[in-house]
Amino acid sequence: MAKPVSQRGFARERVIEAALSLFAERGVNGTSLQMIADHLGVRKAAIYYQFHTKDDIVLAVLGPVFDDMARLVRIAESISSPDSRRDATISGFVELAVRHRRIGSLFYGDPAVIALVQAHQEFEEIADNLRELLVGGTHDIGTRVAIAMITAGVFGSTAEPHLQDVSDADLHRVLLDCAQSLLRSPRSAAAHLGG
Amino acid sequence: MAKPVSQRGFARERVIEAALSLFAERGVNGTSLQMIADHLGVRKAAIYYQFHTKDDIVLAVLGPVFDDMARLVRIAESISSPDSRRDATISGFVELAVRHRRIGSLFYGDPAVIALVQAHQEFEEIADNLRELLVGGTHDIGTRVAIAMITAGVFGSTAEPHLQDVSDADLHRVLLDCAQSLLRSPRSAAAHLGG
Repeated sequence: MAKPVSQRGFARERVIEAALSLFAERGVNGTSLQMIADHLGVRKAAIYYQFHTKDDIVLAVLGPVFDDMARLVRIAESISSPDSRRDATISGFVELAVRHRRIGSLFYGDPAVIALVQAHQEFEEIADNLRELLVGGTHDIGTRVAIAMITAGVFGSTAEPHLQDVSDADLHRVLLDCAQSLLRSPRSAAAHLGG
Repeated sequence: MAKPVSQRGFARERVIEAALSLFAERGVNGTSLQMIADHLGVRKAAIYYQFHTKDDIVLAVLGPVFDDMARLVRIAESISSPDSRRDATISGFVELAVRHRRIGSLFYGDPAVIALVQAHQEFEEIADNLRELLVGGTHDIGTRVAIAMITAGVFGSTAEPHLQDVSDADLHRVLLDCAQSLLRSPRSAAAHLGG
């Protein structure tokens, strides 16, 4: 028989932790609620008590990341000088990626997560607003590629297994340096590209 | 009844194409051989005739990418000047990522693909050799993070849906510019970091 009392109290955090391990190993689409229950040695009902679908678990993990992104967008949008606005966005973005380092490393590039974000308009809007702040109104190819290089490079570096020994502080400092140098140099490169 | 003659001739390329569409949508772990067969409107036996496992399909797709990486490693290792060697490696890497743009965009970050690469020592060795050539013997944090930013940024940018309108030639040119500027500037930043 199940033990309803202890299962009701079964911590949300433990479900999320178990899910994150399985997602990292098998991807979101390769993980089922049953596998999460098995991993924790509980019945599926104990998971259902907290989360009705696997997507609910993914959303619970992504939520805080998007909350921080939304906060960054609000702060950056209040800055009137375009250059300061972009600098603040880059700096906030690097800080956020390092702070959510573990989640980024699990989710970056997972097709199921990309689809889930696209299916949630509020997430899509936040991501679009952030991209818009980074691109800063220009639409030349040089800047757009540089911004993609910054976002993919920053998220990807936080996800890089070979950098797991690097402290958050060092990672933050070098990534910010890299992002700033990318913003400075490719803008001039962009000038001699058709775009 | 199955139609063995036409199924035997069922093109390898069509299986790979169907698999790539499903991988992009659902990830490798979320895709089964049965789904690939259904997508093509054939029986699973027709797929088995070409590929015995789903991993065989992934390996058939990754093979040419790793062949090109191995070729790049051999060329770069034959260059004696360390600076020229690293420049050639960066330049070859950007060229390779853009050439395999579609595959990179499907596979970048898929946990199943990462696990498959790790399980194949020949792939792991090629990836390690390439990383070694890029890092160029130094082990300071600044250079290691910059290299991670370049590899993740270059692969991630080729995968970026918002850049699908950018031509291969433009993408190649800007990414090379970005990679070169990252290699130049963070090396000096690295000097004042512990590590």
